[in-house]
Amino acid sequence: MSSRDAVLAAAPRVLATQPTASMAEIAAAAGVGRATLHRHFASREDLLREIGQRSLDQWAASMDEARVLEAAESGDATVIRACLVDLLTRYVADAQAFGIALTDPTVLNDPELREGAERCFVDELRLHGAAQATGVLRPDVPPRWLGHVLYGLLVAVRDALVEGDIAPRDAAGLVVTAFLEGSGAR
Amino acid sequence: MSSRDAVLAAAPRVLATQPTASMAEIAAAAGVGRATLHRHFASREDLLREIGQRSLDQWAASMDEARVLEAAESGDATVIRACLVDLLTRYVADAQAFGIALTDPTVLNDPELREGAERCFVDELRLHGAAQATGVLRPDVPPRWLGHVLYGLLVAVRDALVEGDIAPRDAAGLVVTAFLEGSGAR
Repeated sequence: MSSRDAVLAAAPRVLATQPTASMAEIAAAAGVGRATLHRHFASREDLLREIGQRSLDQWAASMDEARVLEAAESGDATVIRACLVDLLTRYVADAQAFGIALTDPTVLNDPELREGAERCFVDELRLHGAAQATGVLRPDVPPRWLGHVLYGLLVAVRDALVEGDIAPRDAAGLVVTAFLEGSGAR
Repeated sequence: MSSRDAVLAAAPRVLATQPTASMAEIAAAAGVGRATLHRHFASREDLLREIGQRSLDQWAASMDEARVLEAAESGDATVIRACLVDLLTRYVADAQAFGIALTDPTVLNDPELREGAERCFVDELRLHGAAQATGVLRPDVPPRWLGHVLYGLLVAVRDALVEGDIAPRDAAGLVVTAFLEGSGAR
């Protein structure tokens, strides 16, 4: 693994438990010197933007792999529901790999990353809209609200995993249930 | 209003839309000079810790006002459910007032604030546990997961409001529904 890849592999892991970790701490975790780290990333902001970009690429890849646009166009409730569950399961894995990108202020405020995130969000909304139209998701809320709820549940599962409050094996199921059925008793 | 109060009133508003706002931007929004701001808060971290402390105080106050411990001890499903809805409604207002504190790394990593947050969380868990025992919330998930879901929904509603995706008037109802009933169609 190149030293740049070593940094990009180690940084999200360190930042998951210590979101304010310094460049020195990140370098130590990656097993590279500070000079090497600074050669690849001139600043902490640069490193976080790169993590944000990878997180965004992964978001787009997960939607591709779950065939979100194809499902949205199918108009078939069974296909749409299966796609949603598949997508959520992929998102939970992504939230573990790139958890810091979900809430880091540098990532959230970078104009280019914001634009990319909005493009992904709009594609995702086509699935939510189709799910509402076919009776998979409740029709009485704005589709964008559904996107925010999903995002909030990813922040929730990231934190629950970091704090050891849920079993990793249960994570995807807990998110799917919380999203589709809620937490009220049946 | 003292200049310190002016800063503490303006800062969360600025940070809600610009989480990386500088001390200069915060001073400008509060209508005070940079020297005045620095006299009250030596660093951006100091200011954020004070906002975090106020957010934590508000969390504790909301639990008091909703009589969370009293409801948890009542063993009465109707009382517990009403308390949960009341609490969520208060939390939504708090998330608007102190939204930055929900995800700011400085706030989340301050040892003293973390300790205070864990104490609030543990009190809140008594309500979730009682709600599970009385058939208000689903019994098949860890109570701490319920706390994380609630927190995630507050991040969601904060962002949906900042981005103008939902009507402020609808915010509390959307969170209560998303938490108790989920987003699946009935």
